Amino acid sequence: MPRLDGRKNDELRKVNIKRNYIAYAEGSVLVEFGMTKIVCTASVDDKVPPFRKGTGEGWVTAEYSMLPRSTQVRNVRDISKLRINGRANEIQRLIGRSLRSVMDFKVLGERTIIIDCDVIQADGGTRTAAITGGFIALMDACSYLVDKKIITEIPIKDFVAAISSGQVNGQVMLDLCYEEDSNATVDMNVVMTDTGRLIEVQATGELSPFTRESMDSMLDIAEKGIKELISIQKSVLLEGFK
Amino acid sequence: MPRLDGRKNDELRKVNIKRNYIAYAEGSVLVEFGMTKIVCTASVDDKVPPFRKGTGEGWVTAEYSMLPRSTQVRNVRDISKLRINGRANEIQRLIGRSLRSVMDFKVLGERTIIIDCDVIQADGGTRTAAITGGFIALMDACSYLVDKKIITEIPIKDFVAAISSGQVNGQVMLDLCYEEDSNATVDMNVVMTDTGRLIEVQATGELSPFTRESMDSMLDIAEKGIKELISIQKSVLLEGFK
Amino acid sequence: MPRLDGRKNDELRKVNIKRNYIAYAEGSVLVEFGMTKIVCTASVDDKVPPFRKGTGEGWVTAEYSMLPRSTQVRNVRDISKLRINGRANEIQRLIGRSLRSVMDFKVLGERTIIIDCDVIQADGGTRTAAITGGFIALMDACSYLVDKKIITEIPIKDFVAAISSGQVNGQVMLDLCYEEDSNATVDMNVVMTDTGRLIEVQATGELSPFTRESMDSMLDIAEKGIKELISIQKSVLLEGFK
Amino acid sequence: MPRLDGRKNDELRKVNIKRNYIAYAEGSVLVEFGMTKIVCTASVDDKVPPFRKGTGEGWVTAEYSMLPRSTQVRNVRDISKLRINGRANEIQRLIGRSLRSVMDFKVLGERTIIIDCDVIQADGGTRTAAITGGFIALMDACSYLVDKKIITEIPIKDFVAAISSGQVNGQVMLDLCYEEDSNATVDMNVVMTDTGRLIEVQATGELSPFTRESMDSMLDIAEKGIKELISIQKSVLLEGFK
Amino acid sequence: MPRLDGRKNDELRKVNIKRNYIAYAEGSVLVEFGMTKIVCTASVDDKVPPFRKGTGEGWVTAEYSMLPRSTQVRNVRDISKLRINGRANEIQRLIGRSLRSVMDFKVLGERTIIIDCDVIQADGGTRTAAITGGFIALMDACSYLVDKKIITEIPIKDFVAAISSGQVNGQVMLDLCYEEDSNATVDMNVVMTDTGRLIEVQATGELSPFTRESMDSMLDIAEKGIKELISIQKSVLLEGFK
Amino acid sequence: MPRLDGRKNDELRKVNIKRNYIAYAEGSVLVEFGMTKIVCTASVDDKVPPFRKGTGEGWVTAEYSMLPRSTQVRNVRDISKLRINGRANEIQRLIGRSLRSVMDFKVLGERTIIIDCDVIQADGGTRTAAITGGFIALMDACSYLVDKKIITEIPIKDFVAAISSGQVNGQVMLDLCYEEDSNATVDMNVVMTDTGRLIEVQATGELSPFTRESMDSMLDIAEKGIKELISIQKSVLLEGFK
Repeated sequence: MPRLDGRKNDELRKVNIKRNYIAYAEGSVLVEFGMTKIVCTASVDDKVPPFRKGTGEGWVTAEYSMLPRSTQVRNVRDISKLRINGRANEIQRLIGRSLRSVMDFKVLGERTIIIDCDVIQADGGTRTAAITGGFIALMDACSYLVDKKIITEIPIKDFVAAISSGQVNGQVMLDLCYEEDSNATVDMNVVMTDTGRLIEVQATGELSPFTRESMDSMLDIAEKGIKELISIQKSVLLEGFK
Repeated sequence: MPRLDGRKNDELRKVNIKRNYIAYAEGSVLVEFGMTKIVCTASVDDKVPPFRKGTGEGWVTAEYSMLPRSTQVRNVRDISKLRINGRANEIQRLIGRSLRSVMDFKVLGERTIIIDCDVIQADGGTRTAAITGGFIALMDACSYLVDKKIITEIPIKDFVAAISSGQVNGQVMLDLCYEEDSNATVDMNVVMTDTGRLIEVQATGELSPFTRESMDSMLDIAEKGIKELISIQKSVLLEGFK
Repeated sequence: MPRLDGRKNDELRKVNIKRNYIAYAEGSVLVEFGMTKIVCTASVDDKVPPFRKGTGEGWVTAEYSMLPRSTQVRNVRDISKLRINGRANEIQRLIGRSLRSVMDFKVLGERTIIIDCDVIQADGGTRTAAITGGFIALMDACSYLVDKKIITEIPIKDFVAAISSGQVNGQVMLDLCYEEDSNATVDMNVVMTDTGRLIEVQATGELSPFTRESMDSMLDIAEKGIKELISIQKSVLLEGFK
Repeated sequence: MPRLDGRKNDELRKVNIKRNYIAYAEGSVLVEFGMTKIVCTASVDDKVPPFRKGTGEGWVTAEYSMLPRSTQVRNVRDISKLRINGRANEIQRLIGRSLRSVMDFKVLGERTIIIDCDVIQADGGTRTAAITGGFIALMDACSYLVDKKIITEIPIKDFVAAISSGQVNGQVMLDLCYEEDSNATVDMNVVMTDTGRLIEVQATGELSPFTRESMDSMLDIAEKGIKELISIQKSVLLEGFK
Repeated sequence: MPRLDGRKNDELRKVNIKRNYIAYAEGSVLVEFGMTKIVCTASVDDKVPPFRKGTGEGWVTAEYSMLPRSTQVRNVRDISKLRINGRANEIQRLIGRSLRSVMDFKVLGERTIIIDCDVIQADGGTRTAAITGGFIALMDACSYLVDKKIITEIPIKDFVAAISSGQVNGQVMLDLCYEEDSNATVDMNVVMTDTGRLIEVQATGELSPFTRESMDSMLDIAEKGIKELISIQKSVLLEGFK
Repeated sequence: MPRLDGRKNDELRKVNIKRNYIAYAEGSVLVEFGMTKIVCTASVDDKVPPFRKGTGEGWVTAEYSMLPRSTQVRNVRDISKLRINGRANEIQRLIGRSLRSVMDFKVLGERTIIIDCDVIQADGGTRTAAITGGFIALMDACSYLVDKKIITEIPIKDFVAAISSGQVNGQVMLDLCYEEDSNATVDMNVVMTDTGRLIEVQATGELSPFTRESMDSMLDIAEKGIKELISIQKSVLLEGFK
């Protein structure tokens, strides 16, 4: 049984990363994983959080939000409810951890790079697209700092990308779209570097507990997907070669 | 002395309105006035505000927000400050009034159309672009309701568009970009219908009070601009003719 | 057809401005436009907003709020809803712009004058009464600063007052009361200086778009009203001559 | 040693209660205790809190707030801090309890009367002035309900008024103004009925613990003051006899 | 008629104060008045409120909160309603005043001790248990500061404890449990020092106004109770003698 | 090199689960993992979230909060910042998913069980202790519903418990205390059922990416720990056998 859009189980959706999408940001992309579209910007700020002050080291943080009509049913804005969405909060913490894991904060120096991930259209996999695209925005913001001679070298130690996998109708699938995700009994998000080391693995089977074996299959397929994503990231950066 | 981008004083920036920009919304556009880019979606909701209940009449409301890095300096999100931005609030009230002015609410029936205007990139004139583009999203959402036989005819009585004008370096100019707007001594926003009637005129000269004569010149140039915008709206709708 | 209270179309309601209404404020008035009653106080603060720091220039800002039972139906307080009223926010921004337009901020020096406008009883025209009365409170606070030798001269360049006009039952009327305002097809608020220059013009015809001609008539009548208001402001200040 | 304003230790300040102060409210007064001025309105609402639903009994609640410049130093508004002032909250709970203590809620029926107490100018004793004046507003709102034949009799069982007393410079004084209150080692607020029964006694000696004897003296003087206040309330109501 | 739990009218419930209950706090107790259980911690902070800065004097403040299921019906958390509970706010202000009344702030120096009172299980009398137990936590935090040679002597001038009394079924009773409190026509909270001086007396008879005589009886019984509580505090501190 | 407290690498801390800790809750425990102490209560509510209405199925949700001084440095309360702590939000979502995974919601019927987890003292592993202890509170609340004949059988399909593991100084360790956790290069939280199936696996190596092999070792040791925890849960439930 083929997938909804005819993909093979271990096949990514079409991935597009358009650089320099916003004129003002130090780094910015429009990242698309199939119908999922996210604007990621990287903004350089001269301040650091209190726990970094005086350490000579910088910080990377992320914010994630969805436009009200990025989804099938309109979402009420956070500000109308006066509280940040719990899921969004969890996702932005994940994006932050993932991108920080490859930073050399001494090289960055005492400044913060803020990665804003605003979902324009959501069709599953927004957190993994945000990490994958956010990495390019982060890289471009770092290049900007090097170009401006504010720092001497790119403070990034490795590539990082993320993908989802899951079990749908008894099959292990890569990069679930919204409808697949809704029918998944288990879903997993994996964040990995170019050197094949894991940064974050989150597997959850609220509807159906899972075995170590199925976890391994989901990890295998995710590793394959992330290798492809990092290869795409590299092409995108080469193209630019600004 | 020519304008920054070589435009004539009474010339609009390049205007683009891309329909069906978001897959899920009943109506949606990406509207561009030069470098200003806004996603406008129209969402149909079966509920109406309390003051409309039982009247048989509908409502149109608008929300306006800017992505944090749509501007040269990053804006902190409303939710981080727990308060809606005062300027955004004023703008969304203006968008709502402007679009409601051309609605036939009896024909719409007891439902609300919410126009979300999310600024992706801001270079002046966001409120006027939001009204001009939001009108197309509203029209498409109404067409959707007619297509679905939920209502019998388009509940829109007239076209509506908006433009800014102002006095910069002693000259009256149309459709100010951000830098022109920052140097304007007076600025005006005008909302007008296809039949040439005014819906809203807001002129403000906080830095330099102005005369009736200069107000008239700004209105003249704005009327010319709005006629062009409505002509663009018509072409865009004809193209689509879905 | 005479007006509800027998006034002529171009006639103001009875205007009263009682100075030194609050014992503690540097400037304060009770301003009445007919049944509309507002307490305006001017408070001097030694701080300025961040964008003024180190410039040697001061600032004027305004806050506007209505007592819960200043209206026919009781309003829930902002704090109970944890959000500032959208209309109030728009009005306080207008009051601030209007009063700033006549200030010489270099003469004021790095300090802020806060104009608090608290509506005790509302019968239409609260924003124009607040600007007209707030100007006197501002003037008195400036006199206080001169008396205390904190500044050397009154940092006010011109008088400023505001009035509403509108179209009701096909007639152009000045200074609408609440019931007239509710029946107006178009309403306009005008802020003008003693030298006859405009600071702000806001005309809105949500229910019925309007022509340039009717806009001109409303402006004419408003200009007449503002001249009378400024004449009242002058008498009030002379009386005091403290 | 006479008091600041020449009063005797057991003498009230000049008390004024001006009825029908706000045109729209079912009951309203401007109450003055010396320089302390408060607008109290009583608004009738057809709803009751959840715990009263279906009981056939009504409710009385109070809200208390100070205009920003009712005090010597300007107060930031609650809405600017997004939190209700702790002291205000305590006071409005006291006003509510005090006024409820004399109500016959079966006679009132399932409706709520909201007492809004907005301090225009504060010179000590605002909570006691609010209770004393709020009682008259409540009485007038009840008369309104009887006049409109919504209820058959006034649902108030007794008069209630309140006053402060305290120890200042070793002397027991009645009705402290702000400066006396700031120098008091002990202060007490007493709420009492016309039949001489106590509703609330709050004595606090944060700066200097006190004895039973001094508490008794403060209570004695407060009882005397409350009897005078209730006598004033009666005259005020007779005057009106509308 | 004996009380619900067989106590005599002037008898305290079983009181337990377990010191050093939380490993990290400078002072901490679990205090139990019968089934009422509260964790009180005292945390030393090097900062003082703005009004203390540069005075050389310190401050004591308190926060009070109930676990959601400390009561018979689950309470929604404050953060879910975005507003602090009115009753909790009133109680924490009382706790703060009571503990400050026995402090020598010059000896404490410019630092703040925060008393957190978190109710684990509530059966009436939480505010009085919080004051009585909080005093021990405060004492232990002060001992900690002396032990660490941060201050030279315990900055506490007197013991302080608190108890409730009330009128239930026509009888005057001490230390009301929840069910008694619900049936009380009058209830009183008394805060007193070891030297027998009063710090705070709050008596309220919302449901039934009371006489001076019954107030005296309630005060008598409360004084007896507080003496016993202070005797318990002393034993508890001696035991520890760490 | 032994661990800080002399434990072996695969050894749990001392685990205590005290049932019926709070008198009012339908289920409640004090759970201790070494110095980590959490009060977990289970409260039955007759309402369900909107998406469950009319489905005949129930819901389980969780809330997690820390007392201000449960940690080495005092935390400001959420309500003082008007925003829920991001980490707490993430943890309560995990607790909810974990406990829901073993529920039979048809048997529970249209009611919600709320699990409140309030951390009294935190020394690492609070989320895993909350899940492990929360399960017992949930079980007791379900027994209560069966005892009261509100439901016919316990709607719980399996046992569930959780534990942390991690890599510290190059060694894989079970059930990290705070100091170990602070030094861990990778940490993992595992939620598992009695039948050995996984519900949630979260591994994060922000400071040091990790290999599949080390992930497998952490999972192995966690499985061993969870089996012991479920054995403890069973003894605890047998003891009670109320």
